[in-house]
Amino acid sequence: MSGHLAVVGATGAVGQEFLRVLEQRNFSYDKITFMASSRSAGKTIEFKGQDHTVIELTEKSFEGVDLSLFSAGGSRSKQYAPAAVKAGTVVVDNSSAFRMDPDVPLVVPEVNPEDCRRHQGIIANPNCSTIIMVVPVWPLHKVCPIERVVVSTYQSASGAGYQAMLELEQQTRDLLAGKPIEPKVLPHQIAFNLFSHNSRIGEHGYNEEEMKMVNETRKMFHSDDIYVTATCVRVPVMRSHTEAINMTFSKPITEDKVREILSAAPGVTVVDDREKNYFPMPIEANDGDDVLVGRIRQDISQPDGRGIDMFVSGDQLRKGAALNAVQIAELL
Amino acid sequence: MSGHLAVVGATGAVGQEFLRVLEQRNFSYDKITFMASSRSAGKTIEFKGQDHTVIELTEKSFEGVDLSLFSAGGSRSKQYAPAAVKAGTVVVDNSSAFRMDPDVPLVVPEVNPEDCRRHQGIIANPNCSTIIMVVPVWPLHKVCPIERVVVSTYQSASGAGYQAMLELEQQTRDLLAGKPIEPKVLPHQIAFNLFSHNSRIGEHGYNEEEMKMVNETRKMFHSDDIYVTATCVRVPVMRSHTEAINMTFSKPITEDKVREILSAAPGVTVVDDREKNYFPMPIEANDGDDVLVGRIRQDISQPDGRGIDMFVSGDQLRKGAALNAVQIAELL
Repeated sequence: MSGHLAVVGATGAVGQEFLRVLEQRNFSYDKITFMASSRSAGKTIEFKGQDHTVIELTEKSFEGVDLSLFSAGGSRSKQYAPAAVKAGTVVVDNSSAFRMDPDVPLVVPEVNPEDCRRHQGIIANPNCSTIIMVVPVWPLHKVCPIERVVVSTYQSASGAGYQAMLELEQQTRDLLAGKPIEPKVLPHQIAFNLFSHNSRIGEHGYNEEEMKMVNETRKMFHSDDIYVTATCVRVPVMRSHTEAINMTFSKPITEDKVREILSAAPGVTVVDDREKNYFPMPIEANDGDDVLVGRIRQDISQPDGRGIDMFVSGDQLRKGAALNAVQIAELL
Repeated sequence: MSGHLAVVGATGAVGQEFLRVLEQRNFSYDKITFMASSRSAGKTIEFKGQDHTVIELTEKSFEGVDLSLFSAGGSRSKQYAPAAVKAGTVVVDNSSAFRMDPDVPLVVPEVNPEDCRRHQGIIANPNCSTIIMVVPVWPLHKVCPIERVVVSTYQSASGAGYQAMLELEQQTRDLLAGKPIEPKVLPHQIAFNLFSHNSRIGEHGYNEEEMKMVNETRKMFHSDDIYVTATCVRVPVMRSHTEAINMTFSKPITEDKVREILSAAPGVTVVDDREKNYFPMPIEANDGDDVLVGRIRQDISQPDGRGIDMFVSGDQLRKGAALNAVQIAELL
């Protein structure tokens, strides 16, 4: 693009990944500005060999800014994105603030790039677990509509931010040294443990993370006929989210057909070597752009041939957040 | 019991747990003998304040032994259990060697204690992931038959033995120290990683661990009408296995009814505090006898009311292995 690009929340885990992705993809712009809350304003960020001072995020920061990549949390998005839009900037927002707003497109470029066109200033980046699920699920759904998905997640610490990654590391060190630990960022011990995702539980007993997977999928697929149930779980892994996905299709579909579709799908790499017992793993999804997909098999619990199981892993900070947002920006 | 008890494979992770469980439950016997392979024979085991020398497991070791608890791996069970039975001992076998043998009862005392009666010398202890699943699933199935289960596991290192637990610890230390690591016991890096269960993949694309969950459940439930699909995953957790379980019942059932049934079920503790976001976790299942069950909720992907989701955690070494075997011995 030509013009003035702003990275909002530049010092966070996703913000830092924005810098890497922008550099790797050689994203073009005339001017770049880094913004963060007052706590981080004044810090220096090195980007493409140059030092930049982080300026404070205020409602007046967006004068002359053409495009903003927001990743500063939902409450800051709610507060500052409208001001940014008023100042004439297009906002690609990584928070949950506007995702379900009917006036805001929610976009994964491999799924519904055309929805970008109808934006009114804000385009929302979906939740990380949703993105990693829909990249391989959408190309299958396009060929043979999916009626139901049962998904269980294995979510990394990075999804709770940079401080959670540090906590996983420090807590692990302390436990190995026999020291007492006290969870601060995450609500429970994460080292050598796992727990149900720490977002608020709603009235139906699902937590917010799970409902994002349900509702965002329907919004992007433009369908209320796809039923999703999710169990979201935090595991002691640093960066990449992994998911066990069970699907019920509207018609019988073979695992060979699924493998053929996924092998040709954008944003997907099939890693499915049964003989070597070699399948998607978070350490191999880390730092990659693609969602790794394996364990593709006919679901034996659905003898009518309409069931497929698979196991996927994708980098939460990249495709789950920064990369997807930059890909949206590239579409604009 | 009165008589002579033998613990076979006494030096392994499950063998060591046998000792703890026998002591805690004050299991009665007149004489106790510890056996292991030649590698471990001659070692000293302290039990109830007394030192015992581990004797070598041979076909002639079972003279005068009334009951044997076997946990020395499938190939040793296959080789030595028949000799033990010939010598007049009853074998409770923790390996997979005889589980699907139609002449061998496969028993979880909370599920099918009556099957013990028809033993012909050997009673099999089910796979750990299966036990932890069926303890809470069976009481529901009894009230309202279950047609289909979709289960994803979060399995601890202990399931691969004591050496795997040590590997998880050492590999984590090495990674935190910036040292290169080389997986030896498990096939892939386990520290800060996870991977599809490392058992052999069969012709349908399911691994052996998954097929155990499918087939052993059917055998114990005496039903070919319950369909199970499983995705088994190894995670960097020490002792307890956790499972996300999605069920389809033959008739609508409410989550209140499920909670009521589980609250009264043997071997189950309901841990389901939505307000405090407090649910089953492996560190809290560790060293406990019960399977912890929470996240009990109506499955919104099954609008006919026949779906329930839940999240369970149980100690792999205790209820998943040693405790269940000792409970079988207590039934005899």
